[in-house]
Amino acid sequence: MAVNFSSIPAFRGFRAEADVFDCEVIGELPSGLRGTFYRVGPDWLYPPTYANDIPFNGDGHAQMFRIADGHVDFRSRYVKTQRYKAHHEARRGLFGTYRNRYTDDPSVRDLSGGTANTHIVYHHGKLLSLKEDSPPVVLDPHTLETLDDYYTFNGELTSKTFTAHPKFDAQTGEMLAFGYEARGEDTRDVAVYSFDANGRKTWEAWVRTPYVSMLHDFAITATHIAFLAIPYVVDVERMKAGEVHWAWDSTKPTWFGVMRRGGDGSDIRWYKGPERCATHVMNAWSEGERIFVDMDMANKGQFPFFPYLHGEHFDPKLTAGRITRLSVDLNKHQDHYDMEVLYPDVTGVLPRQDDRYHGIPYKVGFMPRFGWTAQGPETSYTRFDHDTRKTTTYIPGKGIGLAEPCFVPRRKDAPEGDGWVVGVANLPGERNISELQVMDAEHLDEGPIARVRLPFKAPGQVHGWWVPDWELPV
Amino acid sequence: MAVNFSSIPAFRGFRAEADVFDCEVIGELPSGLRGTFYRVGPDWLYPPTYANDIPFNGDGHAQMFRIADGHVDFRSRYVKTQRYKAHHEARRGLFGTYRNRYTDDPSVRDLSGGTANTHIVYHHGKLLSLKEDSPPVVLDPHTLETLDDYYTFNGELTSKTFTAHPKFDAQTGEMLAFGYEARGEDTRDVAVYSFDANGRKTWEAWVRTPYVSMLHDFAITATHIAFLAIPYVVDVERMKAGEVHWAWDSTKPTWFGVMRRGGDGSDIRWYKGPERCATHVMNAWSEGERIFVDMDMANKGQFPFFPYLHGEHFDPKLTAGRITRLSVDLNKHQDHYDMEVLYPDVTGVLPRQDDRYHGIPYKVGFMPRFGWTAQGPETSYTRFDHDTRKTTTYIPGKGIGLAEPCFVPRRKDAPEGDGWVVGVANLPGERNISELQVMDAEHLDEGPIARVRLPFKAPGQVHGWWVPDWELPV
Repeated sequence: MAVNFSSIPAFRGFRAEADVFDCEVIGELPSGLRGTFYRVGPDWLYPPTYANDIPFNGDGHAQMFRIADGHVDFRSRYVKTQRYKAHHEARRGLFGTYRNRYTDDPSVRDLSGGTANTHIVYHHGKLLSLKEDSPPVVLDPHTLETLDDYYTFNGELTSKTFTAHPKFDAQTGEMLAFGYEARGEDTRDVAVYSFDANGRKTWEAWVRTPYVSMLHDFAITATHIAFLAIPYVVDVERMKAGEVHWAWDSTKPTWFGVMRRGGDGSDIRWYKGPERCATHVMNAWSEGERIFVDMDMANKGQFPFFPYLHGEHFDPKLTAGRITRLSVDLNKHQDHYDMEVLYPDVTGVLPRQDDRYHGIPYKVGFMPRFGWTAQGPETSYTRFDHDTRKTTTYIPGKGIGLAEPCFVPRRKDAPEGDGWVVGVANLPGERNISELQVMDAEHLDEGPIARVRLPFKAPGQVHGWWVPDWELPV
Repeated sequence: MAVNFSSIPAFRGFRAEADVFDCEVIGELPSGLRGTFYRVGPDWLYPPTYANDIPFNGDGHAQMFRIADGHVDFRSRYVKTQRYKAHHEARRGLFGTYRNRYTDDPSVRDLSGGTANTHIVYHHGKLLSLKEDSPPVVLDPHTLETLDDYYTFNGELTSKTFTAHPKFDAQTGEMLAFGYEARGEDTRDVAVYSFDANGRKTWEAWVRTPYVSMLHDFAITATHIAFLAIPYVVDVERMKAGEVHWAWDSTKPTWFGVMRRGGDGSDIRWYKGPERCATHVMNAWSEGERIFVDMDMANKGQFPFFPYLHGEHFDPKLTAGRITRLSVDLNKHQDHYDMEVLYPDVTGVLPRQDDRYHGIPYKVGFMPRFGWTAQGPETSYTRFDHDTRKTTTYIPGKGIGLAEPCFVPRRKDAPEGDGWVVGVANLPGERNISELQVMDAEHLDEGPIARVRLPFKAPGQVHGWWVPDWELPV
């Protein structure tokens, strides 16, 4: 049987590995823009084998735009996961529904099911392609060739899983990371780590969550780490019956967990909150014993393809995310965490910031806003100034779909937020192509100063990462 | 300066090198269809440096569809000509207008200007990418990597040029070929060769044309070789003034030259004809001393981008090609060649046939028909049965653009014309993609039995070539 996506056109992706040397550029790229924009997303090599499967279960496809001297080279490569290689060898789909090993073909039981399709980051000379249910996959940052399909930090990774959102402490050069369901499926164990600039493990602690929950992201400050457990829950019996890994249990509270960096984890405290969904952190910081975490928070489970256990249906109003500041004072005997919606009128998800300020007090953030019109998606990028609580928004043309952006500092020592925002736009209509758009970060509303055209619609993206040329020469 | 085609969108090509593993297939590929469909066309890496440049001066981009067991893998690679490598190194266009070395950047004067963008054929284990102004470029038939950017058959090629239309004698396994302007620009010399199945030169003869003319194609029979000189002429003074290589001189006659295979060329005879344009041969054969050559013939120069020297303008009616049979009887003392328009109602160019019957009496041919509508191109494929003079036509949907097809025999020993026709279609509108269409050659009007989808609009094609798996295992 040849490949055919006709019955599920929404799952039809790019499926090509492509190189574009010296991409066409409309406008002019700033000469100071030097580095590589990496992105990764799911791109089904074979159609799902289960009708209930979800878009996020596609094979990871990594992409890079390398920019220097006003020129851009593009490359895309599938991440050669154990799963991809099994698909390639068999020329058919072998893995079952989303994060459910009970539904896999028996021939792949001993392989990692990780798709490496969620995030891509660079640390200790390695480009890491990440999926939170499995260890990192290492890519060559210059070629995107896969170098290690199951990276355990030279055996130092004791968790069976590794987050798609490791954090980078710009002050120390450390990477902080964790794995949840760390001892296996449906376990409450979370392993927390730090790795130094050479990738050596310098800290490990184990904690337990109040219930097994999707811990997609986490937060770091100079002194603390925070988690938010949200009501996406696991039920192994449901999985054995062929359901996907997660379902939304609206009877569950959220729990905000805070622990000290460098400790043994026994100090972790869990603060209760109402039913909420928040999956991504813009930034976090500590002021003495007070910790603040800014997230994109909604009232209900935001993923329309995961079932709701108690009869709800996906409601765009209740699932719209807003930048919300969670905080606790560790010196107080509070049981609940505090919440403040910072920008009530702005909805979106996938917040980002100037990563040089990660874990410390900051003022500038960015977030895509998503909407739908009859013409297709209507997306925009908003810049947030927390000092003034003012926002600036770039609204592209009708039907243009913008992916999560990255901030690029103008120089290594440029002031916070001084630089560019880069993000990929899918253009509608007969062109059916994608382009990388480059905006001045302080004049977002003026729109792109340069657009880097691809001759096709690029593979999808969940997250992206900018690596400046002072970290990795281009 | 980054690349920008905005002022010349018609020259904007694909520019990506791509691999699609296990292409999506709509319909079902016949299990007997095993082999590789190669194609090549111009795909500008950098925009032309001269405003009068023509589409055919773009860098050659080779592509292949490898088909077996109902699965298809696609690959495209630029041909790494000396010209391409110079462009790549400099990140800008360096070559001047079409086949005019006077307009090149001085830095590339010692390099071959060949683009290898016209035809791609397989012989003696080598995949040859061809442009008639320069020697072949050798590609790896499995990877499309360039192995030799200036192939001289181990030094045996004495011409400075090599046709894009070598012929393959299915009876002997020989490749017959020629070079025109063989001693250099504006020379009337033509070198004619045969090479055996191992690529060793077994015959060479030199002849001269009545005037320097575009000799794009030629004809072979079991005993003879034929050329048609058409009124596309060279004028070095015009070239020095920045004009392209060719212009149409309607005061010139055509000349049909016939020579014996294996001789020293001194027997060549030139038969006169009226102003006509014909650039491609469907097939040719000899009956005793009579030779027949079927071509796509029009009244006037068919390339709208080449100037007319005597005030004419491109006229679609006068430039429409029709399958025309040219013939002479070598025993007769005739000065003019004979012509018969075989299918007066069918217009098109780029005729093909069942190549197993090349050079011998045959009955089946194919040709794309080209037209334009407000919705875009309107093209179709016609099958010709010379025994009955009947035609069968496949008309795809509105706006679909079909490239030159290839015939694929059902088996090595299948009857003439029993098999499939394969050709690439560009789909209009929002999909903006290409697909390889597979038709039953004897039921063309029933349309595709399988369509192999690409996730992008493929690089352009001038010519294509099918290599069955019994010549090159896939």
